[in-house]
This record gives sequence, structure tokens and C-alpha cells, in this order.
Amino acid sequence: MRTIEWRDGHIVAVDQTALPDAVRMLDLRTVEDLIDAIKRLAIRGAPALGVAGALGAALAVRDDPDLAGDRVAALRQARPTAVNLAWGVDRALRRLPDGPDAVLAEALAVVEEDVRCNRTLAGRGADWLLGRAARPVNVQTHCNAGGLACVEWGTALGVVRALHERDALGRVYVDETRPLLQGSRLTAWELAQLGIAHTVVVDGAGPSVLARGLADAVVVGADRIAANGDVINKIGTYPLALAAARAGIPFLVAAPESTVDLATPSGAEVEIEVRDGAEIVHIGQTTIAPAGTETLNFAFDLTPADLVTAIVTEARVIHPAKGERP
Amino acid sequence: MRTIEWRDGHIVAVDQTALPDAVRMLDLRTVEDLIDAIKRLAIRGAPALGVAGALGAALAVRDDPDLAGDRVAALRQARPTAVNLAWGVDRALRRLPDGPDAVLAEALAVVEEDVRCNRTLAGRGADWLLGRAARPVNVQTHCNAGGLACVEWGTALGVVRALHERDALGRVYVDETRPLLQGSRLTAWELAQLGIAHTVVVDGAGPSVLARGLADAVVVGADRIAANGDVINKIGTYPLALAAARAGIPFLVAAPESTVDLATPSGAEVEIEVRDGAEIVHIGQTTIAPAGTETLNFAFDLTPADLVTAIVTEARVIHPAKGERP
Repeated sequence: MRTIEWRDGHIVAVDQTALPDAVRMLDLRTVEDLIDAIKRLAIRGAPALGVAGALGAALAVRDDPDLAGDRVAALRQARPTAVNLAWGVDRALRRLPDGPDAVLAEALAVVEEDVRCNRTLAGRGADWLLGRAARPVNVQTHCNAGGLACVEWGTALGVVRALHERDALGRVYVDETRPLLQGSRLTAWELAQLGIAHTVVVDGAGPSVLARGLADAVVVGADRIAANGDVINKIGTYPLALAAARAGIPFLVAAPESTVDLATPSGAEVEIEVRDGAEIVHIGQTTIAPAGTETLNFAFDLTPADLVTAIVTEARVIHPAKGERP
Repeated sequence: MRTIEWRDGHIVAVDQTALPDAVRMLDLRTVEDLIDAIKRLAIRGAPALGVAGALGAALAVRDDPDLAGDRVAALRQARPTAVNLAWGVDRALRRLPDGPDAVLAEALAVVEEDVRCNRTLAGRGADWLLGRAARPVNVQTHCNAGGLACVEWGTALGVVRALHERDALGRVYVDETRPLLQGSRLTAWELAQLGIAHTVVVDGAGPSVLARGLADAVVVGADRIAANGDVINKIGTYPLALAAARAGIPFLVAAPESTVDLATPSGAEVEIEVRDGAEIVHIGQTTIAPAGTETLNFAFDLTPADLVTAIVTEARVIHPAKGERP
């Protein structure tokens, strides 16, 4: 199954807000539909956002060959932190001089590349880990950097799948990933589909999983990688990096080259999206704090380069903690 | 309001599972009632458990002067990690040779001492912080170490209240504290009652609050302090200690002397309670993971002594990170 694709002249994507209860597909026929799906996280995950940006650009120019720039600008900025969304839009639009069909062709190329990139970087990540940890490798992950975050294979979970294919994987510890629970809802669901042994823990317990030696490595995705090797990823990633450093185990980031943003000198310059506090306070029908409680809902955090043992992409391995820079 | 007290020949306690929706009092007339309330966390918090242990011993010996040892043993072990529960039972029972009334008198002394101890250690903690941070002091806390965790004043939140009384408090950042949300349910409720400015964040965001300089110190309670200065506290405390060390800000533990367990050499020897995974997977009527998902629900974690800037008790300040030992 592909998370997002072009079918019958429009975008079809899995509604990630409905999982794990239901696998529901969204038909997105306009840029406005797409922006709405991105804002409410029905489509999420940095690589999937890159693909969505490219396919969205194709939708926009088909509907309006004069390219009402506002719609494309709104799409580029639907979520500010992941670099991939704007990257996907810009890449497809570079073909605009050749007409709408050329833009669509470029967007479809982005889709196929994502699948290939994931496979390549996943294999490289598995190689890297197996050079540093004994089989079977037990992995801690955070949020969802699986097929659902990409087109079909996954980045961090792609590494996990590559280990599994080689019969070198033990167990995956999955942070539930508050507030929106992408770990317990999406990653646990993907791993169950794949028949991979996994255990969900609350986010506060991830560092203890590492301190107790239950996991041999942390493997996560990224929303943006700055030029100095700082990594922006889902809120709750930074504590795992601190705990991995303390435990002396690798902290591995798996992401496509499109996540590397050389135009941004360091993580401090990245705009961290602050989302509605209602995401924290309401879980289903349950309200978990007194009415009117103030919240601060950072969607992402910054892991400083010195805590990042390695970044694997489809092209290379970078070791920021050793001073290497993307 | 007192969280737990002796009234009309039995124990009356706030049902902490009903907060913040309702303030409901439980009438606990037998040791079995009390054990049930402790196991389901209607009564929780290390100091409150110490008081519950002492009052429970009084209940037990009044109902059975021959002291069916099994009932007292079951009470001592209702929760394994906090040392205070067994301490309270044992302390009251020391007076058994003088009869049931003497046991009750000792238990009532434990109640009053808790209130006094809290006041004293809170003032000492505020003094200590004001010697190290500029006013107003912004504080990050975790779980609930307030009046609800004690008899009426609080340990970590006691320090916060003492700062507030001195007009030296800025804002309190409150981790929601999954899985049972003692931060967003209980601490936010207490702070609202007290008119103290506070902001709830998900547990994964606490370390970012510190990295961004929003808080000047971490102040938490403890369930057990080992002889080497290792601190056992609610799961999710350890990542805050890692982040405080990285940010160069104090990590302060506020707890009564009854939490110090010199018989336990280090945190590694403390039994960490593992609770039912249903606490993670179900929030109100909502199920947040696919059916059958495996979980690991550590209730507490271990913060190594070298990350603990100071421990304040009613008697002293200890600086484990500088090599001082309780």
C-alpha cells in the first residue's frame, strides 16, 4: 500500500488521523483539500510532505495554469518546520516552463524517488548499525518514520525493516509520542502489520529503556537537518538523544537528502511550529486538565549535532558528533 | 483541605482518580479498603503513602489486636517502590506494646509531622533556589508533589508555594506525566487553586523547556532516595535531570527524611513497580493503540546521583552531584 499517490487525476492519501481504527483513503482534488489534510495531520511525516508538496504543485498548475501564486505559497507554508514540503513544491514547479504535464511528471518522479531513497538509506542504516551493535539489534524509536510518513517503505522504520529482512532485528521500543500518539497509533500499527516484535512505552520511559540496556540504538527520522548537523524532529526526540549519549549507544537519524537544509546554519534558526493546545488537553472524549489550563505545544524539538552519532541518507553517512557536517 | 486524615474512627482521603473533575472524599474503614485505594492510586504520593501506612496500621491493630500479620504485610507491600509506605506502617507499629491507642497516637503524630516537615523543607528549598537563580524563578516540575501527594502543603510544590509567598515565583511548567496524567490532572488543579501561573506541556517537551531557558530550575519530589544519592521518582523524571545538567540549571529534589533509605545502597537495588499496560493504552473511553499491543509500564525511573544538584529535606540540604551522600 502506498501512503500517498496520484490516481485518476488527483491525490489519494491515507487519512492518518483515522488509524489504527480504520484504513480510510482521502480523495484530494484541490490544493485547498490538500492544505487542510496537511494542517490536521491527515498527511504527515517529512518525506510524505515532500511528495504532497510536489503533487500539490501539479494540482495547482493544472487547475490554474497562470498559477495563482497565493495557493502555492499557502501550500508551501501549510506546516513551517519540515523543509521537505517547500522542497517538493519548488522542485515540481521548476518544470513549469514546460507546462502542467511536465510539473506532474516531475511530481511523479518525486514519488518514485522517495521509495527508492528509502530503500537505499534503510540498507545503509542497517549496515551502519550492524557494524556497531551485536545481533539481534534492539531499537528505540520515536513518533512515526515508517511507510506512513513516506510513500511506502519508511526512513527510521525502513532501517528497522532492513534489519528485520536480514534476520538481525530483536525488538522495537516505541514511544507513544504525545500529544498525537503517532507512536502508539501509527508505528505500532505498522510494526504489527509487518510482524515485528514491539513494545509501546510512554515518552517519559524512553530514556529508562536506554539506561536499562533494553535497546542497543535509537533510530529516528528528521523534519529538518541544519548545515551544522543539528536535527529537528518530533517533540520528545531530544530526551532520547541525551539518554543515548549517557548510555553510550548510537543515536541514528535516517532521512532523505531532501531533509538536509544547507541554507539554515543551525537548528536555532528553524521555526518550531507551536500547535493548538487542544491537542494536549483533549484525548478522544476525555479532557485531561482543568478547564482553561494554559499549554505550550511545541510540535518539534532540536537535537544538537554533538548528540547525533550518525545521519544516514540515500547518498551518505554523516557523523555530526565527530564534527562532520552535512 | 487535608488530603488524608483520621476522622470519626476511620481514614478519610481525597479520591485522586476523580480529580480534576470532582473533589470526592473516600471513607476507608478497613485495611482492605485502604490497600485498594493505594493500589488504584486514589491515594498516591510518597509522603501521603507514609501517612496512609501509619493510619492503616492503626486501623489494623484496632480491628485485630492480635495483629493478623498478613494484613499489615499486605499493606506494607501495596506499592513496592516508595519507601514511605512501609516506613509509616513500621513507625506506628513500634508503639504496639502500648496498645492500639498508642499506635493511633503515633499515626496522628506522623500526620502532623508531615505538615510541619513540608513547611520546613519547602522554606529551605526556596532559600536554596533563591541563592542560585534570579527572581522571578521559573520552575519545571513533573508529576504531582503537591498537597495532594502529602497531607496538605507539598514537597516540590511546597517549594513552589514558598517562592510564591515570597513573591519570587514566575511560572511553573508542568509535565502532563503520562500515563496517569498526575501533572495535568492534579498539579495543574492545585496551582489553579493557588492562583499560580502555570503551563502544561507533554512529557517529551520538558527537556525543550529547559533547553530554551524557559525554566530556571527543575524541582521534583522523590519516592525513594538511596544511600548514594540516587533518586527514584515518577517515570519521566530522569530525562528532566539529563536536560537540566545539559542546560546548566539546578535539579532540586524536595522530600522528607522518611524518603531517604540508607538501607538501600543505590538506585539499582530499588524495585521499580511495573504497572498494568492498560494504564497506557486506555485514556477515558479512547484506546490509543491497536488491540493486543504489548507495553512496558515502568511507574518510576532512576536519576543517578551525579545529576542531582541538591536534595532538600526538613533537616538538611545534600548535594549529590558534588559527591555528598545522604
